[in-house]
Amino acid sequence: MTTTTGHALELSIPDGQPFIDFTREFDVPVADLYRAHADPDLLAQWLGPRSTTMTVHEFDFRSGGAYRYTHTEGGQEFGFRGCFHTVRENEFLVQTFEFDGFPDVVSIETLTFVDLGGGRSRLAGHSTYPTQEARDGMAASGMEVGMSEGYERLEGLFGTGA
Amino acid sequence: MTTTTGHALELSIPDGQPFIDFTREFDVPVADLYRAHADPDLLAQWLGPRSTTMTVHEFDFRSGGAYRYTHTEGGQEFGFRGCFHTVRENEFLVQTFEFDGFPDVVSIETLTFVDLGGGRSRLAGHSTYPTQEARDGMAASGMEVGMSEGYERLEGLFGTGA
Repeated sequence: MTTTTGHALELSIPDGQPFIDFTREFDVPVADLYRAHADPDLLAQWLGPRSTTMTVHEFDFRSGGAYRYTHTEGGQEFGFRGCFHTVRENEFLVQTFEFDGFPDVVSIETLTFVDLGGGRSRLAGHSTYPTQEARDGMAASGMEVGMSEGYERLEGLFGTGA
Repeated sequence: MTTTTGHALELSIPDGQPFIDFTREFDVPVADLYRAHADPDLLAQWLGPRSTTMTVHEFDFRSGGAYRYTHTEGGQEFGFRGCFHTVRENEFLVQTFEFDGFPDVVSIETLTFVDLGGGRSRLAGHSTYPTQEARDGMAASGMEVGMSEGYERLEGLFGTGA
């Protein structure tokens, strides 16, 4: 995995392996970066592209809990749900993910939170898809724009981003 | 994926892909095959090698629920836990899986239950590992013996197996 300097989203989409990796640095303390994932009221303010409105319907943020939310854009609603396998404060999350547009295609994602000191942090993600086709479809879906915009919005919540 | 005839466990461990697939037919109605996975008292009687004793500590069998169990063998205890992403009666399960001997290495498994008619059924499993190394390690762990013995024990619960 490549590390980043600055605020670029670094995506890695390896050929012929059903993974997507990313890293992203933030001028945000690790506790705030984690809180932006742990608090559904904060999460709803940044996750996804700028053009969407997010509503969290369920968010039981603990190892063994589950979540469900919708993104609304131009009158269309897109549903997502998953379960939280591991929730470890300021350090590590493992969660499943399903988009209702592709029912029964469930990926699993780990998120690692790294304290860089001086009020800075790094997020490293590793997503695993149940087939190569599912990974390739996700990679072709425009996810990079949505992720980039989302992380810019996250920084904005803490006064350092766009 | 290869289909089976008879009662052999058919494992597929593709080169260079982090998956393990299997199929197994049963002389057991699909509702019983499903119940053997849904009822923790039944599950504890068949899951794992014959040499182990299983204790279920948590089993919230619903989409968004979670489970935790231990296998005991020769005075040693091995812990396992995961969350249930999807629970669809007599049809389909999606669950995560972690062995406490490999902390934070979490796989995701789908189980498809197929009614073959005439009191027979087929189980098809697809497991996805977060790295190729994790898949290769699982494949080399002797899992085939444990799975084969487990499914023989499952058939035995319904009077048709060993």
